[in-house]
Amino acid sequence: MTIDLNADLGEGFGRWTLTDDDALLSVVTSANIACGFHAGDPSTMRRVCELAAERGVRIGAQVSYRDLAGFGRRAMDVPPDELADEVAYQIGALQAFARGAGARVAYVKPHGALYNRTVHDEEQAEAVVRGVGLAAPGLPVLGLPGSRLHEAAGRAELPVVAEAFADRAYTPHGTLVPRREPDAVVHDPEAVVRRSVTIARDGEVTARTGDRIRLRARSLCVHGDTSGAADLARRVRTALRAAGVRVEAFA
Amino acid sequence: MTIDLNADLGEGFGRWTLTDDDALLSVVTSANIACGFHAGDPSTMRRVCELAAERGVRIGAQVSYRDLAGFGRRAMDVPPDELADEVAYQIGALQAFARGAGARVAYVKPHGALYNRTVHDEEQAEAVVRGVGLAAPGLPVLGLPGSRLHEAAGRAELPVVAEAFADRAYTPHGTLVPRREPDAVVHDPEAVVRRSVTIARDGEVTARTGDRIRLRARSLCVHGDTSGAADLARRVRTALRAAGVRVEAFA
Amino acid sequence: MTIDLNADLGEGFGRWTLTDDDALLSVVTSANIACGFHAGDPSTMRRVCELAAERGVRIGAQVSYRDLAGFGRRAMDVPPDELADEVAYQIGALQAFARGAGARVAYVKPHGALYNRTVHDEEQAEAVVRGVGLAAPGLPVLGLPGSRLHEAAGRAELPVVAEAFADRAYTPHGTLVPRREPDAVVHDPEAVVRRSVTIARDGEVTARTGDRIRLRARSLCVHGDTSGAADLARRVRTALRAAGVRVEAFA
Amino acid sequence: MTIDLNADLGEGFGRWTLTDDDALLSVVTSANIACGFHAGDPSTMRRVCELAAERGVRIGAQVSYRDLAGFGRRAMDVPPDELADEVAYQIGALQAFARGAGARVAYVKPHGALYNRTVHDEEQAEAVVRGVGLAAPGLPVLGLPGSRLHEAAGRAELPVVAEAFADRAYTPHGTLVPRREPDAVVHDPEAVVRRSVTIARDGEVTARTGDRIRLRARSLCVHGDTSGAADLARRVRTALRAAGVRVEAFA
Repeated sequence: MTIDLNADLGEGFGRWTLTDDDALLSVVTSANIACGFHAGDPSTMRRVCELAAERGVRIGAQVSYRDLAGFGRRAMDVPPDELADEVAYQIGALQAFARGAGARVAYVKPHGALYNRTVHDEEQAEAVVRGVGLAAPGLPVLGLPGSRLHEAAGRAELPVVAEAFADRAYTPHGTLVPRREPDAVVHDPEAVVRRSVTIARDGEVTARTGDRIRLRARSLCVHGDTSGAADLARRVRTALRAAGVRVEAFA
Repeated sequence: MTIDLNADLGEGFGRWTLTDDDALLSVVTSANIACGFHAGDPSTMRRVCELAAERGVRIGAQVSYRDLAGFGRRAMDVPPDELADEVAYQIGALQAFARGAGARVAYVKPHGALYNRTVHDEEQAEAVVRGVGLAAPGLPVLGLPGSRLHEAAGRAELPVVAEAFADRAYTPHGTLVPRREPDAVVHDPEAVVRRSVTIARDGEVTARTGDRIRLRARSLCVHGDTSGAADLARRVRTALRAAGVRVEAFA
Repeated sequence: MTIDLNADLGEGFGRWTLTDDDALLSVVTSANIACGFHAGDPSTMRRVCELAAERGVRIGAQVSYRDLAGFGRRAMDVPPDELADEVAYQIGALQAFARGAGARVAYVKPHGALYNRTVHDEEQAEAVVRGVGLAAPGLPVLGLPGSRLHEAAGRAELPVVAEAFADRAYTPHGTLVPRREPDAVVHDPEAVVRRSVTIARDGEVTARTGDRIRLRARSLCVHGDTSGAADLARRVRTALRAAGVRVEAFA
Repeated sequence: MTIDLNADLGEGFGRWTLTDDDALLSVVTSANIACGFHAGDPSTMRRVCELAAERGVRIGAQVSYRDLAGFGRRAMDVPPDELADEVAYQIGALQAFARGAGARVAYVKPHGALYNRTVHDEEQAEAVVRGVGLAAPGLPVLGLPGSRLHEAAGRAELPVVAEAFADRAYTPHGTLVPRREPDAVVHDPEAVVRRSVTIARDGEVTARTGDRIRLRARSLCVHGDTSGAADLARRVRTALRAAGVRVEAFA
């Protein structure tokens, strides 16, 4: 029984900071590093890559719509060819810093609105996959099981890595409760820790309806942009180990 | 006797176009491709890389200050560490498209104000060289002989490639007459063609004073952002061949 | 019988130019000036304002999503409050240059994807109207008759100005044929000129089906970003006058 | 005896926050609001304007080089005409929000590298003044006494407001000790409070050499982007009152 812990990192920009990169890099096994389109200036990218490499944390490209003002949270109707190229650009930029740190970009995960949109939008999902294929053929794509993104990755013969969220409510069908609905987010740290363990150890989670459902996940996403994020991540990791789950990057 | 012909390409951005990439890629042997900081959106970068690869034109990263509004022509006091990282970011992004096209980024050339500044500014010159070393260790740096940039590259054991400008006036010391001075630019196409030949074949150029001076150059820069640029470049190439000079990318 | 002629102007950015501002400002009566979010740098805004003021052309704020890379053509899910503020920001910036030129911003027209989206999207339409109300209470909103944008403007007691497109095909219901459909755009200059006259003089246009339909419009949009745009606009203006239609800015 | 207290506010951007705008707006009498070029998104600008208007705090335009990535701290060789227009653009945008809040932009203060550069650079100082004259003729310019900026403002018959920094070391000539030198910044809160009082009450400050020097200032700048900034500002204000100095916006 093993699970990967991933978090969004390097989400500052110039003078502004957001994620506690140093603390989280001592907890997670995979770092989704912002690549400059929603956050992430070159110097932050370099530093986070260096720190990740030093601590043996896997480096992933957290690719986004080009939207600094909206932090990549505003869905955009980017034509597929442009989107593919924008994804490739971001991966390429991060690869320079990963290599410079003696490591490599090991996976790709879309950010924010692009993540949400590629759950359902086949055209954009395929564009992201084409972007990965252009910049880094063969790289695994982290995302929701059953998403259009994972389907498109499968068709392109890219490996997929299913992830789950311990702090998000699920429907009985195993999909995420949309953020705009009440109770979409689990705020109680105890509950987050408990759910992490049942997801990782039992492959199950309690849906919003109270039903226990199957949920296969090779990676667990912990959030990095709230105060106390690093503490909560550390508690999750400790609880996972105590439950006999090995925390390590996906194969 | 051989000479390389280089030009700035891919200098559009989204809806806007500037350089006649298709025409110039049938003339030059090295393409300085804009990497998104002064010009160059991801789709343009991909297309120019594909076309360059198809035609056997060498791909170079034309790196710049982050200044779309000023087209990279406004000198900036970027702290050296940030500048190095910004350079690495741009090279990395272009590498994705070069590799995707079955080619590779083969050299680096600073653009506009960064080019001019690193002629004299040791700190920024070293920063550019560090950026190259981070993203692409060992890559040649194209620039003016005797520039701080070439000195810094030499200290870092990066190869340097000296370039000359057939359409710029030279002082008797072999440096460029600053653009703000009268007669800094040679506008007569016949003169540009003639100067190209004397530079490439004889290693000499007539300075503003009328003196014939030595000018060693392995690459000749032709401008791509003016109307008639491709035609002039073609005439230069034809004249070079007629004079017995082989036009091919530097080794 | 009078009609206003409007065109999108000032759509360059820094080094890049697009619209033939000088030529078009000698033809149109209303200038939709780009405000920096999809195009339009401060110096271009100032120059176009000065030229428009000098020639008695009315100045309008052409507001857009924040999307230089996509030229404002990619629809974005901007939260309504942010969108309202982004619209106000752009109007305010243009007002500085209009006032500096001894004129004033006299109307607002959304650009590109924002124009298309606010035809149908009530939330974004209301956001644009709120932005106008914040920066310039009482300013007329140029747009399609029957659009959500005009409905929202009406509810907010802003004047609305209906516009028509002589180079776009119409459905029998008086709506525009979407650009993705064949024959959405009328390319024949003769036809564009003829349609301009029937729209302005008769209040009618021939729909794609061949039916003659009613089409009320106080302004006619001529496109400024294609080669020959100024020539075509001049022919339209000449034909309108010959048909007894006065070409002047809306009241 | 009266003094104005000014602080830089609204220096977040989208998802990122920096200054504690709410707390500082209960202390200062003048708010230098970021206008989007180094920081300051439209929604933040609106909120800060509304809050300032509500509390009777004067609104100033904090204008900057176009440099989000560098927070306006990297000096740029912007051609004077472009710089003037960039300044006008920022003022205009802020005016929309000030008016929307029932207030108005009452002064202009350059930010960061533009502030420092216009102390010495006459060309850029004149450009800033031209930008003010374009967007808001007659508006006072806040800055260092004796600066090129104030000289240029004087020649253009704009009012000038001299400011002083209680947390910066001064040379015996009354100029600021450059930040790169040791002891350029006064870190001890007690000392900052004490210096505030001597500047405001006595028109004097102790220079780095220990000499007591004359320092005329109608406004005192308190920093807003450090932790504890609001607390320190409050202590300064309390001490000023206790010393019999009235804290109110400059006339």
